[in-house]
Amino acid sequence: MSTDKLRVIPLGGLGEIGKNMIVLESGDDIIVIDAGLMFPNEEMPGVDLLYPDITYLLERRHNVRGIVVTHGHEDHIGALSHVLSSLTVPVYSTRFTRELVAVGLKQRGAKANAQLNTVTPGSKITLGRFVVEFFSVCHSIPDSVGLIIQTPQGIVVHSGDFKIDYTPVVGEPTSFRQLAALGGQDVLLLFSDSTYVELEGYTPSEGVVSDTLDRIVGEAKGRVIVTTFASLISRIQQVLDVAVKRDRRVFVTGRSMKDIVKMALKKGYLEVPDGVLCNLDELRALPQDRVIILSTGSQGEPTSALVRMANRDPRSQVQIVAGDTVVISATAIPGNEALVSQTTDSLFRQGAFVIYDKLRRVHVHGHGSREELKLLLSLVRPMFFVPVHGEYRHLCLHADLARSMGVPPENAFVLENGDVLELGQSSGEVVDRNHAGIVYVDGLTIGELDDSVLRDRKLLARDGAVVVTVAVDDDGGKLAARPIIATRGFVDTGDEQSLIEKGQGVIMAALDGAGRRLKEESFVDAKVKDSLGKFLYERTHRRPVIIPIVVKTGKTQSTQAGQGA
Amino acid sequence: MSTDKLRVIPLGGLGEIGKNMIVLESGDDIIVIDAGLMFPNEEMPGVDLLYPDITYLLERRHNVRGIVVTHGHEDHIGALSHVLSSLTVPVYSTRFTRELVAVGLKQRGAKANAQLNTVTPGSKITLGRFVVEFFSVCHSIPDSVGLIIQTPQGIVVHSGDFKIDYTPVVGEPTSFRQLAALGGQDVLLLFSDSTYVELEGYTPSEGVVSDTLDRIVGEAKGRVIVTTFASLISRIQQVLDVAVKRDRRVFVTGRSMKDIVKMALKKGYLEVPDGVLCNLDELRALPQDRVIILSTGSQGEPTSALVRMANRDPRSQVQIVAGDTVVISATAIPGNEALVSQTTDSLFRQGAFVIYDKLRRVHVHGHGSREELKLLLSLVRPMFFVPVHGEYRHLCLHADLARSMGVPPENAFVLENGDVLELGQSSGEVVDRNHAGIVYVDGLTIGELDDSVLRDRKLLARDGAVVVTVAVDDDGGKLAARPIIATRGFVDTGDEQSLIEKGQGVIMAALDGAGRRLKEESFVDAKVKDSLGKFLYERTHRRPVIIPIVVKTGKTQSTQAGQGA
Repeated sequence: MSTDKLRVIPLGGLGEIGKNMIVLESGDDIIVIDAGLMFPNEEMPGVDLLYPDITYLLERRHNVRGIVVTHGHEDHIGALSHVLSSLTVPVYSTRFTRELVAVGLKQRGAKANAQLNTVTPGSKITLGRFVVEFFSVCHSIPDSVGLIIQTPQGIVVHSGDFKIDYTPVVGEPTSFRQLAALGGQDVLLLFSDSTYVELEGYTPSEGVVSDTLDRIVGEAKGRVIVTTFASLISRIQQVLDVAVKRDRRVFVTGRSMKDIVKMALKKGYLEVPDGVLCNLDELRALPQDRVIILSTGSQGEPTSALVRMANRDPRSQVQIVAGDTVVISATAIPGNEALVSQTTDSLFRQGAFVIYDKLRRVHVHGHGSREELKLLLSLVRPMFFVPVHGEYRHLCLHADLARSMGVPPENAFVLENGDVLELGQSSGEVVDRNHAGIVYVDGLTIGELDDSVLRDRKLLARDGAVVVTVAVDDDGGKLAARPIIATRGFVDTGDEQSLIEKGQGVIMAALDGAGRRLKEESFVDAKVKDSLGKFLYERTHRRPVIIPIVVKTGKTQSTQAGQGA
Repeated sequence: MSTDKLRVIPLGGLGEIGKNMIVLESGDDIIVIDAGLMFPNEEMPGVDLLYPDITYLLERRHNVRGIVVTHGHEDHIGALSHVLSSLTVPVYSTRFTRELVAVGLKQRGAKANAQLNTVTPGSKITLGRFVVEFFSVCHSIPDSVGLIIQTPQGIVVHSGDFKIDYTPVVGEPTSFRQLAALGGQDVLLLFSDSTYVELEGYTPSEGVVSDTLDRIVGEAKGRVIVTTFASLISRIQQVLDVAVKRDRRVFVTGRSMKDIVKMALKKGYLEVPDGVLCNLDELRALPQDRVIILSTGSQGEPTSALVRMANRDPRSQVQIVAGDTVVISATAIPGNEALVSQTTDSLFRQGAFVIYDKLRRVHVHGHGSREELKLLLSLVRPMFFVPVHGEYRHLCLHADLARSMGVPPENAFVLENGDVLELGQSSGEVVDRNHAGIVYVDGLTIGELDDSVLRDRKLLARDGAVVVTVAVDDDGGKLAARPIIATRGFVDTGDEQSLIEKGQGVIMAALDGAGRRLKEESFVDAKVKDSLGKFLYERTHRRPVIIPIVVKTGKTQSTQAGQGA
């Protein structure tokens, strides 16, 4: 590798690009920006989690100088346990992020000796030939930062996940001061958050939500139940502030909400006067118009506190009563829409009135819209531009936006995960495209997952399984009995008996006269799949997974015909 | 049943209520409004379609006087083949709807002797003691109607699926004349479309889309590819109009789009000058800026023309070239979002620029927003109100809206499918709640589907199947061989071999010393499931479906242990 180039490699991602991890390499030095996990989509039944494939880092393990983390969301920190299990490298993050990183590592049973370093916005750290400076950005979690990175090739700016909010509820506004201080200097490269490039204008300030919440609580004659993301500390602060103003007390329910409120209070990220938070006994003693309940469940998670309320689960600490107002102060993350809708419907059925983002401004999101993206581009005026944190279409739109803001057309790069972009001081080129794999977490297995495993799961889900056990007399080369057919998830039991009996006949006819070939497992396997498959399709128009098992009797030997076929 | 009451029963629906079918009953007369199908959700793997459960109608088959159809979308006509297969009853619809009904019945192989009657807006038909009058409404398919129904108990108005558009592109505006003519008369009951009750204001006119399409085509330097719903004839007309204005020729691709364009031209629902539509040879001879391609695939359907283009499928008649502009003139129906996004990303990857509803006003939907719903309520001023065509939350919001418009609070009924509402001339009551079932179409099976079948499919999808074949010596009551273990969709083959070998040992240990109890299938079944299940969970944290099969050897008898357990 030439030492006069800066290499940029986005890793991880499922649809989204440059979100979970970005590798920067210059000479013998590598730094990593973020180490996040992904959640599987509907094409990956049974898969628990996904990690970026870090082979590139492992192959250059002695060059990795550190991992720099922009903020504490799982898609940016959730793969740290995986990375640190095979790579000993220091991690740098702000204080709130560090708390969440430490909790995550503990939950995932990572080794306790991880070097977790705390940085503050404005500070600089040196990692090999990289000097990384942190600047505050507003996002939907405290202590989020962007990065200004001095490299031998020039200055690299990473926006972090950001929006511009001049009146944030918690923490600092996005810091232009440090970016403005770059003033005279040329910026080589800007990475910028593409999540909401589709949206015109500006993302509204969190302050807007305060007003709406205040009005809702003021109008409510009964209890108000608010659900939001546990890590959205500013929203929790808004709820606490409204409670104080409207003389209500707040009961917190749901494990992750309780944990984070406790931590945030302790660390000074939340402020609430004594006597506002209440416990379960106090809750029950209060009149309904003196109560706010703060709950998990904004994504309709089946075991969350809100969903338990919606389903009248007897284990729930809170039961919905007519007159309750439920505020869903969040948007459904793509993929969760159906769960959130079901929860909303169930709450209405219980007699609650539910207010969600389509009805009133009870949520604003944490990423900048087009005008904010343009503002950043105009402040930084980079020579090269790499849109990150979006699906392919978002990156294309963001690259177009950058070109319209003066970035030379050929200098805006829409990368895919695994692409290797090499930048010199005046020209850049994608020198390698090795689409990076994804590491599956499937139960206790962490690693590659055979495509055949996922394919079989999808086939099984569609039409179920039909197991055919054929006992072959090993001496005589004839069937020792009628084949046994067992099914799961195929057709209704009512229809099944006659299908099975006829299916046995079909198999026996197919094997009739095979003579000694019955002793060849692959022969029996193919005959069973073929004959029974055709028969079942004719009768049901379905194609279940057929699993033939050959048992050899006589000498009581056994074999495994079905396996791996 | 008392003859002086009007009975209202919504049937069908999956989440949505009063959409697919509504039954009206007065004395010995029943009429049915719509007969639509539903598409399965992710909780129903492998299920093809869903029909309303029409047991209520079958039990009163001699009273059913007719089926009145409001418009030709599948969720309103798609169950006609199912209903007509067991009920001989005339169907009444407008001309365009009738065309689609006839096509649907033919495709589903329904009997050819269905009585399909064509009505025109303004006309009246008498069905027993019901007199049904049709009025034009604007919706996203031609010839949509609402209903004014005279009943012995009073007048019932059904909005149909509607929006208010004073400048529709095709067909008549929503007809207030007939509704206004009701002026002096009291209306007993209004059914009204709740789909977009969440949206403030008015749904924009189709005219808005014409302007956007014209600008996009005017700006495009290459080909423009437009995809929309095949039944959205007015949108197709808009594309043809823009083509004429901008001197482009139009190539139609995708089977359903071709079929419906052909039918609509023949029946006079589309108008286009000669020489605008072109064939494949002409397409290839034209310069790119003279071409518009009209395509299926607005929902990202995997076998549609647009998805074939996006995936560079060699079977595609059209290949994407750099400089193509693709317009997705539709919104993703809930559940299709991921497919549409994937298609958009793939088109960008091929070098196209894709314009979709988040970027420009390339689509307006076919249902009224809140102000339109209020307008209808204020025109009709019903005594009773039943919101339909929405999920539970939509019905609650719509009932609230009706109350705010003067409907007495107790007279706005949020029903569920299967509820029986009885209305007298001044009071109403839900007299029966028997949540109506749904009829599954699963391959060739039409009927109830065992919950266990769907449950098994979901379990199989998550962790796969492990088949254990145990050969028992029928004479001696001992194992005739090591158990055979075969898996599908469980874990990677690499990890599997040692798991299988150890699993065999675990099963043998569990059965060791069982003696003659080995001859009890249920005993072996339970022991295998229990011991192997625990072992596999410990090793993998997964719970595959374990299917034990017991084979009796010796006397070469066989049995089916696994089945139905």
